[in-house]
Amino acid sequence: MMSDLSSQVASIGIIWAPICCKGLEAAELHGQVNVIFGPPPSSPVEATDCHEPHAISVSMPASPSGLHIVQAKKVLFIDKAGPTAIDGQPNQPSDSDSINSRQPQQGKFHSQPISAGNSCGKPTEGKVSDPFESQLRIPRNDSQRDKRFDPFKTWSGKLERQLSNLRGKPQEPDLEAANDCHSAENETVPAVDRYFDALEGPELDTLRATEVSVLPEDKKWPFLLRFPISSFGMCLGVSSQAILWKTLAISPSMSFLHVSLTVNLVLWCISLALMATIFLIYFLKIIFFFEAVRREYHHPIRVNFFFAPWIACLFLVLGLPPSVTVNVHAAIWYVLMAPIFCLELKIYGQWMSGGQRRLSKVANPSNHLSIVGNFVGALLGASMGLKEGPIFFFAVGLAHYTVLFVTLYQRLPTNATLPKELHPVFFLFVAAPSVACMAWAKIHGDFDYGSRIAYFIAMFLYASLAVRINFFRGFRFSLAWWAYTFPMTGAAVATIKYSMEVTNVLTQSLSVGLSAISTFTVTALLVSTIIHAFILHDLFPNDISIAITQKRPKFSKKLAHLRSASSDMKDIEASLPKNNPELEL
Amino acid sequence: MMSDLSSQVASIGIIWAPICCKGLEAAELHGQVNVIFGPPPSSPVEATDCHEPHAISVSMPASPSGLHIVQAKKVLFIDKAGPTAIDGQPNQPSDSDSINSRQPQQGKFHSQPISAGNSCGKPTEGKVSDPFESQLRIPRNDSQRDKRFDPFKTWSGKLERQLSNLRGKPQEPDLEAANDCHSAENETVPAVDRYFDALEGPELDTLRATEVSVLPEDKKWPFLLRFPISSFGMCLGVSSQAILWKTLAISPSMSFLHVSLTVNLVLWCISLALMATIFLIYFLKIIFFFEAVRREYHHPIRVNFFFAPWIACLFLVLGLPPSVTVNVHAAIWYVLMAPIFCLELKIYGQWMSGGQRRLSKVANPSNHLSIVGNFVGALLGASMGLKEGPIFFFAVGLAHYTVLFVTLYQRLPTNATLPKELHPVFFLFVAAPSVACMAWAKIHGDFDYGSRIAYFIAMFLYASLAVRINFFRGFRFSLAWWAYTFPMTGAAVATIKYSMEVTNVLTQSLSVGLSAISTFTVTALLVSTIIHAFILHDLFPNDISIAITQKRPKFSKKLAHLRSASSDMKDIEASLPKNNPELEL
Amino acid sequence: MMSDLSSQVASIGIIWAPICCKGLEAAELHGQVNVIFGPPPSSPVEATDCHEPHAISVSMPASPSGLHIVQAKKVLFIDKAGPTAIDGQPNQPSDSDSINSRQPQQGKFHSQPISAGNSCGKPTEGKVSDPFESQLRIPRNDSQRDKRFDPFKTWSGKLERQLSNLRGKPQEPDLEAANDCHSAENETVPAVDRYFDALEGPELDTLRATEVSVLPEDKKWPFLLRFPISSFGMCLGVSSQAILWKTLAISPSMSFLHVSLTVNLVLWCISLALMATIFLIYFLKIIFFFEAVRREYHHPIRVNFFFAPWIACLFLVLGLPPSVTVNVHAAIWYVLMAPIFCLELKIYGQWMSGGQRRLSKVANPSNHLSIVGNFVGALLGASMGLKEGPIFFFAVGLAHYTVLFVTLYQRLPTNATLPKELHPVFFLFVAAPSVACMAWAKIHGDFDYGSRIAYFIAMFLYASLAVRINFFRGFRFSLAWWAYTFPMTGAAVATIKYSMEVTNVLTQSLSVGLSAISTFTVTALLVSTIIHAFILHDLFPNDISIAITQKRPKFSKKLAHLRSASSDMKDIEASLPKNNPELEL
Repeated sequence: MMSDLSSQVASIGIIWAPICCKGLEAAELHGQVNVIFGPPPSSPVEATDCHEPHAISVSMPASPSGLHIVQAKKVLFIDKAGPTAIDGQPNQPSDSDSINSRQPQQGKFHSQPISAGNSCGKPTEGKVSDPFESQLRIPRNDSQRDKRFDPFKTWSGKLERQLSNLRGKPQEPDLEAANDCHSAENETVPAVDRYFDALEGPELDTLRATEVSVLPEDKKWPFLLRFPISSFGMCLGVSSQAILWKTLAISPSMSFLHVSLTVNLVLWCISLALMATIFLIYFLKIIFFFEAVRREYHHPIRVNFFFAPWIACLFLVLGLPPSVTVNVHAAIWYVLMAPIFCLELKIYGQWMSGGQRRLSKVANPSNHLSIVGNFVGALLGASMGLKEGPIFFFAVGLAHYTVLFVTLYQRLPTNATLPKELHPVFFLFVAAPSVACMAWAKIHGDFDYGSRIAYFIAMFLYASLAVRINFFRGFRFSLAWWAYTFPMTGAAVATIKYSMEVTNVLTQSLSVGLSAISTFTVTALLVSTIIHAFILHDLFPNDISIAITQKRPKFSKKLAHLRSASSDMKDIEASLPKNNPELEL
Repeated sequence: MMSDLSSQVASIGIIWAPICCKGLEAAELHGQVNVIFGPPPSSPVEATDCHEPHAISVSMPASPSGLHIVQAKKVLFIDKAGPTAIDGQPNQPSDSDSINSRQPQQGKFHSQPISAGNSCGKPTEGKVSDPFESQLRIPRNDSQRDKRFDPFKTWSGKLERQLSNLRGKPQEPDLEAANDCHSAENETVPAVDRYFDALEGPELDTLRATEVSVLPEDKKWPFLLRFPISSFGMCLGVSSQAILWKTLAISPSMSFLHVSLTVNLVLWCISLALMATIFLIYFLKIIFFFEAVRREYHHPIRVNFFFAPWIACLFLVLGLPPSVTVNVHAAIWYVLMAPIFCLELKIYGQWMSGGQRRLSKVANPSNHLSIVGNFVGALLGASMGLKEGPIFFFAVGLAHYTVLFVTLYQRLPTNATLPKELHPVFFLFVAAPSVACMAWAKIHGDFDYGSRIAYFIAMFLYASLAVRINFFRGFRFSLAWWAYTFPMTGAAVATIKYSMEVTNVLTQSLSVGLSAISTFTVTALLVSTIIHAFILHDLFPNDISIAITQKRPKFSKKLAHLRSASSDMKDIEASLPKNNPELEL
Repeated sequence: MMSDLSSQVASIGIIWAPICCKGLEAAELHGQVNVIFGPPPSSPVEATDCHEPHAISVSMPASPSGLHIVQAKKVLFIDKAGPTAIDGQPNQPSDSDSINSRQPQQGKFHSQPISAGNSCGKPTEGKVSDPFESQLRIPRNDSQRDKRFDPFKTWSGKLERQLSNLRGKPQEPDLEAANDCHSAENETVPAVDRYFDALEGPELDTLRATEVSVLPEDKKWPFLLRFPISSFGMCLGVSSQAILWKTLAISPSMSFLHVSLTVNLVLWCISLALMATIFLIYFLKIIFFFEAVRREYHHPIRVNFFFAPWIACLFLVLGLPPSVTVNVHAAIWYVLMAPIFCLELKIYGQWMSGGQRRLSKVANPSNHLSIVGNFVGALLGASMGLKEGPIFFFAVGLAHYTVLFVTLYQRLPTNATLPKELHPVFFLFVAAPSVACMAWAKIHGDFDYGSRIAYFIAMFLYASLAVRINFFRGFRFSLAWWAYTFPMTGAAVATIKYSMEVTNVLTQSLSVGLSAISTFTVTALLVSTIIHAFILHDLFPNDISIAITQKRPKFSKKLAHLRSASSDMKDIEASLPKNNPELEL
């Protein structure tokens, strides 16, 4: 199996296989890597592997693709599915969550009559999940492959079918046509308001109870589908640590700590390896599951994380150990700033040009990620001796930071994505002024009033969040948290820079303290990540955010009305009525 | 007829008659200038002119004032009006637009019983349009004059009647009294929310389907009534071009273009002539149709264009050809800044002091016109060697620009006048930072960090709009577009200034490119304007914005409710319910 | 009686008794100081004093505590209460205000069946107000003390009872238990939305008609309960005058006025005495009516006045007469800035962290008080030669001022506390930029561009408010107005500083003019205050803001619905529906 993976990786000409495999082993550990990594292969060898357990229950309605089920869970799964299959009434519409989770597609399709002559009749899900229909279709051994992930695949299984054909096993043409039909139906990305309607939580990553997922909720998806863009947050966290330890090592005001540059070197190498791994994996996701990437890109909060890879690259260049190189060619800067510039044109333009992505709707602390790139770029550019470019990005950052800062501070009731309570994402507030202060110091040549104003704003915001630290509890761990650590590191680095200007015991203590907090946080997060990866095996849960349906499920409408009418009463009175129940009927 | 006009013009002691007449000829071309320019004269000569055709159909209900009907349209008009008059049922309330457009006053008055003893019973419209009533009044030859424009006239036809009296033809006193009564009823300007309710479109210049116009919609109004304040946008466009070509000619970094100062001189003279013409015409509008000017001033978007004349004057002084004069007396600056200051006290005060003109309601890119005057004034003042005054206006501009920038970027759902989609008006975004950068450079003495930050913000906004250029389509041409060209010119001039500081191929190319775009845009707009003026004859369409009724027409209420309940459903869910249909009943 | 007071004051070890007494005499003048100053004593001497008049009407239901009734009002009170007692039907629910005001607790409790066995059955109000119940309890002589104020007392009358016990008169234990029970029920502060729901007016200090007060509305409360935190506004007003006259005396550009420093000395001494008095009284309020202080602190507008004491202290140090001392120890600055910093962490954090105190809900010009402390602190710190601290506070002030300025200018419809019309509180707009300009000048060392920009913004805002001066009418005088005078003084001082930089007739005249306006305003307010204190005796009216119930009174719900449905129709259409009547039922 591992060789199968290696051959796939080799075929796209990337040499990171060892690291990559190591990472995947760490993450998955069950040897099912090949199944979830590339497109689910339907080679006869593997189909036979999994055919037996399913042959037992031919009328099993939900989730017939056993490929992703690890051996340990098989019995449980059959047990779970068994009663539903036996009582023969799995199609009854039901509001209970347990049934919803087992039959995620039922809710979606039950109200659409499946006519026999309908060439686009969602045969894969709609029919397979119907026990009566599936009984008529028993002798299919090719449909065992879970086709529910096809809509998210770049070629909708075409490449895979092509490979199958090469291996001498042609697909049934009617299924293929139905498949195309189905993928055409799903190929458009849900509108923004669907994201707001269907998801909840501060990062819009939890499905509302009234919604159904496009992808099966009851089992693990392919690894790539579960690998979110926010994974780049880890790069941000680690590479900013490299910068911190570099700064600690070379700052005169911190010389009493006698920090070695080796720490920087080690951290930098780890950052580089991590970056390469994550870049590779996400690159594979782009290749194999482009639809999923598109859906991430259209997710109103997730889109901000598309800045993370480039910011992390800037961090890598900033944290470059002196032993590796000192002079970086200016072209690097232009290459790294180009995607940031393009993304900004896109994102800021959406804020301004109305529609469902206007700022008064999407404002969220994670927008800071789209701002901070400007300041990081300005800092790097100024460090490299450039002049106009850094000022350009500083100016753009300043203008949009003002807008975002005011908007976030106001907490407009229309800011649908702004979490009601404090959340780790709020630490991103500290990022922009911290980096801006350093960037301005580099541009201007000294740590002048402008830098100090930015620095003190960062410090105040930090203090303001720190005294509310007890509010930051009870949150489910998320990979996105990594992105929220770099502001602390940024604040620590800025404090060291400030302590070089104003050297006294207080600033030096503050530098040490903030550095310690930052390193401690990253370490704690590292431990959490390792625990989630190796012990809980839930580092990459199903990425529900990308699996929302394009239309609101109908049967849930009434329910939603009742729910919103009762529980949201206070909210509605307090803020603006987002869903006016009167108008919805 | 032309002599009649000249005598009127001469009587108010203005020497611009030749230019003015030329301009009017260009615009109107039908020789009916005298009729529409001054108050419609009811001198016996002309009344006789038009008496004959009307004598044919004495019971003609709608639009009995034949004075404005050009000879070519007479037959058509009679044809149109004929059937209505003959079937004898023109008073039946009807929702169909075709009937509404012919009888715009019916909807307004049909629900008010016209009692015989009512001295204020709207005799001019309500009764004349009633065929039975008008048959009883056949022997009036004075009522042929269209009195529907009277409410907008400064003296409600008093001057005109006085003139008539001088000519020996006294008016009927009862009609006069009724007239006064009617004008008193109409003299108050509609409240702001009426503008929001009755109008739509990004410039609030289109009447909603449920509304009726105070003035006849079926025919051309007097020219002055159709001459909007936004015509000064043309001055902005042309005079900023004069500045651009002056800058191109005198900037060392642009010396390789070998632009002659003659272009500047020619453009400046054209600007001056244009400015004088438009000033004169609008001055006449103030004199003869003060009510219309008041309504423009109370229009929440149109009011911003009241800054345009003064900004254009500042542009004229800024673009002054060196051959004309170099030193301008400081008093000019104070004279020009005084009205801007007063308007700002008014407009900004309205933003702050609540009510229906608060910023969260009226924010619109055209507000930039009210900001940019500060920076243009600061630029001119600093160029003239003043010191404190320019900083004052720069400071005021900076503070309010921050507010406006944030507000517009946020796209609050309550910003009723912010166009949903992009629109040429968005180019005004570029104006303020472009001019601010130049102003600060002049104030500070060199193109320092502050100037660069402003400049780069302008450039980013320009790029942000430029990449969305395909959104700027399908808009009806409007004279207001002229105002949206000067930001491009401003950006070009700022780039030239910047290229003087940072002289390299890139900045020089950018200067040339932006100048070319700016000049091309102005040329294209000039051609469009000429086509609309001379070929389509619709450069000055009826200015519906000022003709809204003061109260919502009653019969349309139910209709409006139904419409808003069905079509705006999405809007209401997405944003804030502006008209809650439940509460309206 | 005065000796009684003195002994109390002496017992808490404060030496300001003479001033304090003088102040109280001025304010109260009726010799009942002792009753209202400390906790209402139930010593036999005084209870006997007031026992006789009450013995006449044993069944008097409402407000049985005669202690606070001055002799002159006694008959009137009995007359008022008489009929209610006689007709024997005081419990009938009624919407009329007159009955509400006499029986404030009826509305609250009438719907709760008072079971005999209920140990927490609100015996003090609920039962005493029932004539039949109270007739059964006639032989109580200890219940004469008005227990309705107990919930606001720090020890809920425990200290007092203890004192009584010491004097040999033990309380009835059942009443004591009931009392505890009751105070426990009331000890939580109302939620923020209750403040918004229950109060109205620009300062949220008027009870809505549908609400009932926790404390009796028909009579004067204890003085301390009526002494609001906004009284510190007086200190702001007077001590800023001291600064103004100091600046007038020492500024070279104002030397032509020959102002003596003696004025400064006198004003400063008055400020100091005033400050000490108010500090003392409020300190006593904290001790004896901590619940009331807590309710003030939770009041969304009143909380901003908690900055006033510290700002006033900063003013005192700034206005320090040169004859007293020139060098102030830096520790003073740190001591004074510490509470400001803590309050800011609290307040700004609430803005940001959502909930009912988010900025889009609570924004009000009085928030400027929470901003201006930063700039005053920065100014004082920089004057004392500190460097980093002042920049810190300047930066924090700048960031949050930007947010607040934009928010207030936008006039979001969700800003529940922003007064619809202009109000004296708007003058606070001028405060922050005035002080910021001086602070920056001190930090930077000269009155540079930054200072000028801040100064000119202040001037424009001042002008903007001044031209609307005719809007500032018809407001009820309030002690809070004092706080609105110091911005004028600040603008005058800033103008003097500016005139030192740009010395000409215009700036000198402006300095004189603004100083005159400021002094005139303070004088006018002083006269008003004296009139209200000594002639109208209503300087400290019942502070209804702190007496709102924790839950909305039930019977008024329907009424509120009807009222809002009819009168607020326009509001609802124009802005956001704050109370959707459909959803409320």
